[in-house]
Amino acid sequence: MNGADVLCDVLLANDVNVCFANPGTSEMHFVAALDRKPEMRCVLGLFEGVVTGAADGYARMTDRPAATLLHTGPGLANGLANIHNAKRALSPMINIVGDHASYHLALDAPLTSDIESLASPMSNWVRRIEGPADVAAATEAAFRASLSPPGIATLILPADAAWGEAPIVSARKVELAQPAVDMGAVQNAAEAIRGAPGRAGIIVRGRAARADALAIAGQISAAHDVRLFSEVLVARMERGRGRVAPMRIPYPIDAATALLSDIDVLILVGAKEPVAFFAYPGKPGRLVRDGCEVLSLAAHGEDLKAALEALRDELGIRSTQQFSAATGFPDEPAPRGKLTDDAIALSVARKLPANAIVCDEAVTSARRYFALSAFAAPHDYMMTTGGSIGEGIPLATGAAIACPDRKVINLQADGSGMYTVQGLWTQARENLDVVTIVFSNRTYAILHGEMKNVGVGAIGENARRMLDLDQPALDWVSLAKGMGVEAARADTCERFDALLDSALSRHGPFLIEAVI
Amino acid sequence: MNGADVLCDVLLANDVNVCFANPGTSEMHFVAALDRKPEMRCVLGLFEGVVTGAADGYARMTDRPAATLLHTGPGLANGLANIHNAKRALSPMINIVGDHASYHLALDAPLTSDIESLASPMSNWVRRIEGPADVAAATEAAFRASLSPPGIATLILPADAAWGEAPIVSARKVELAQPAVDMGAVQNAAEAIRGAPGRAGIIVRGRAARADALAIAGQISAAHDVRLFSEVLVARMERGRGRVAPMRIPYPIDAATALLSDIDVLILVGAKEPVAFFAYPGKPGRLVRDGCEVLSLAAHGEDLKAALEALRDELGIRSTQQFSAATGFPDEPAPRGKLTDDAIALSVARKLPANAIVCDEAVTSARRYFALSAFAAPHDYMMTTGGSIGEGIPLATGAAIACPDRKVINLQADGSGMYTVQGLWTQARENLDVVTIVFSNRTYAILHGEMKNVGVGAIGENARRMLDLDQPALDWVSLAKGMGVEAARADTCERFDALLDSALSRHGPFLIEAVI
Repeated sequence: MNGADVLCDVLLANDVNVCFANPGTSEMHFVAALDRKPEMRCVLGLFEGVVTGAADGYARMTDRPAATLLHTGPGLANGLANIHNAKRALSPMINIVGDHASYHLALDAPLTSDIESLASPMSNWVRRIEGPADVAAATEAAFRASLSPPGIATLILPADAAWGEAPIVSARKVELAQPAVDMGAVQNAAEAIRGAPGRAGIIVRGRAARADALAIAGQISAAHDVRLFSEVLVARMERGRGRVAPMRIPYPIDAATALLSDIDVLILVGAKEPVAFFAYPGKPGRLVRDGCEVLSLAAHGEDLKAALEALRDELGIRSTQQFSAATGFPDEPAPRGKLTDDAIALSVARKLPANAIVCDEAVTSARRYFALSAFAAPHDYMMTTGGSIGEGIPLATGAAIACPDRKVINLQADGSGMYTVQGLWTQARENLDVVTIVFSNRTYAILHGEMKNVGVGAIGENARRMLDLDQPALDWVSLAKGMGVEAARADTCERFDALLDSALSRHGPFLIEAVI
Repeated sequence: MNGADVLCDVLLANDVNVCFANPGTSEMHFVAALDRKPEMRCVLGLFEGVVTGAADGYARMTDRPAATLLHTGPGLANGLANIHNAKRALSPMINIVGDHASYHLALDAPLTSDIESLASPMSNWVRRIEGPADVAAATEAAFRASLSPPGIATLILPADAAWGEAPIVSARKVELAQPAVDMGAVQNAAEAIRGAPGRAGIIVRGRAARADALAIAGQISAAHDVRLFSEVLVARMERGRGRVAPMRIPYPIDAATALLSDIDVLILVGAKEPVAFFAYPGKPGRLVRDGCEVLSLAAHGEDLKAALEALRDELGIRSTQQFSAATGFPDEPAPRGKLTDDAIALSVARKLPANAIVCDEAVTSARRYFALSAFAAPHDYMMTTGGSIGEGIPLATGAAIACPDRKVINLQADGSGMYTVQGLWTQARENLDVVTIVFSNRTYAILHGEMKNVGVGAIGENARRMLDLDQPALDWVSLAKGMGVEAARADTCERFDALLDSALSRHGPFLIEAVI
């Protein structure tokens, strides 16, 4: 039994049974070991950003880590942007990065690089396996690190640790403990809410954004006039009719500070204090008003739902307390004629099948969707969390692997979609039930807005050529076809609705190029 | 005048007038500054791996750095794999990585990351600009670092250094000095060659692989029975009829050690001692025989041609000494019927227009091309140097920007091509004269070979699904069309020849999907 076999066994013993992979030569023994484990589902991505983004989507939907298999420093580097997004989503993930045999490193062969230096910024935990005898302990530690609290564990697997004979071990299930609710924090939060009637807010993230936890937050909100917020970039939230719908803190700084201007107490539930996404000359970085008291009810990794329950009880609210949630869809006529981003958002929200998963990397193009999603059928909603575009297609891919019985709809900006367009092939290969809607505006629209934000009026040729994706226009129908995904184009509302109806009525990947 | 303007001015004063870019919000002031400098050519890549790979291709063909414009840590991360290749190619490059305003970092906004830690493994030099007053000095230092010796300079540009008012400076040309030839090393090399008749070798890299330097090496070889080698992965070599053709050290370890088994003295000219690309159980890492004397005539960054001239003189060889080079093309009938990788290599080598540039990322599929290239019309030959696949399309893109009057032919493996397929769009946008030949074997063929190398015989379902690109097959004609590049498919020699003739007779990008 070699080290690679032990690695697989420890993963499988802990229910890590999906491996998103893009292997290379130094991982051949690991590939051979995976080949001996048919219970491990290996999913190939044709670029590492697909691999890591898919692992993030999988983790968000299952609360468990997938493994990724990456080839040396450059292979890891290719996956880092979506590991960054996963880290900011607080997703568990176990990256297995193959490296040269340990004794080969000193020769500085062409693929040699400092993997630790590359891995550290986007990982919560990094460890290089010391040899075959270290594989079991290191893999158990990686599993533990990926879940307590959830985060990114990166395990470097030298080829000689993979191929070397390892001591026989019987792989075991790692025990994970969750910290008890901090009752002092609960009492502080309750006191703060009582002391600021109508001027307290709760901001939820992670498991606090699931329907059951949101319902409790909604009870607190209803009983004590507490406002509910979510962060600007949502890792995962259970949305839709009958569910409590927090207000998302807006991306523009002025709108965010206005929203929070009358909040004297902000209580974090698995969340961080909200800050501006970017700095702008003369604008604040913190979004709460000066003097706002910010306190944590429970941190990421703690039992957020239990903490909310404890807060509800501490505030003397009964478990039968009513809360407010949308019940029906707004009575708005279906748009007609020239397709627009708002028309797409309305159509998707209205037609959404129950229990769907919506990935939103539409950036500027689906701004209306989040508000409408509160009125849609119950579903999960996910965004690119780290600000690194190029996660929509992989995220949808991973979510579909995690939840084969649920329809996945990816609202995809065209500029962002190009970063990891290779993910469409994986959707075709695995026959995943994903509808990709590309908002084809043929520009980095957000950057045109940002140029205005920094005071640049009319732009010239150089800027235009860096901000626009026209000349030539991308033909997404051909791109999808090139990767085996059926696709069609719409530039009217009627055509879009017909394509969406068709895509929702069948199984398997489909792409709609929505020209707006 | 703000910091971003100063940065542009210093670059332009030093003839850095091409900027491969994929900007984001934190670079808006820099984009605005570039917009005020029409003499800077800004070339958009739809993914950062395109940006950095193109900068590498540009540098290899001009011996000068291009600038790259990358967006924060994740944007840099996306570009790192091809920066790695560029570093291994010894290419000059100036990466400008935008970051948050310095005072914003403490807030840990979503796009915050440790850029220095990411940049260091793939850079020869990293510096964070301290403020607007530091921009001129830092940019001059980056330019100097990129060229003395040539390498990767990464400059981190905080948004407030870009937007802040900078002292007026008149940008000046940085003076660069090249070290004099080390005559001690020349004498040592001459003595070693004299002491090992018929058993000495010279290995060339970088500027020592240009026609003029190769001719001198060829004179030494002819006069003293010295064998000429190049490294396994060639950054750039001037090849073709009338030029001295070094033997490339083979990738397989056994073949490499056999080739070098009777070499007692190996002289490095801008090169490193050759080592195995990967370690394999029971095989050596160093490729020279035990006891082989390895000595350096001149290192990367020194005047390699002058060092070879000095060695020739020291050995008493006249400057009129003859050397051997190919004069005609092998008399081999044109293959017919089913297309094969060897048939493509033969066809390309035979039809190659004079002064073309050939990029070779065909991995297993164009192994015959290098041998044939010695008999082709004079041309430049370049490979992916760092072992990180996904550079072919960008490399060709950058070479075509550098040399608009030369035909660029990219021999592209399909698996590798998918990593940075977005580069085809840049070829269309810039109307670059690039013919991309995709070797569509629908597999990571090299990994099938490596599985055998590590002793795995028949492979199972998991391995097959990680090594093969079929199900579905990639349709490269559609992929190219999706990005505005005309394309066609060939599966016979006759059809391939006709398409190649057509592509060579016209200007602008064209892709041939060669199904083999």
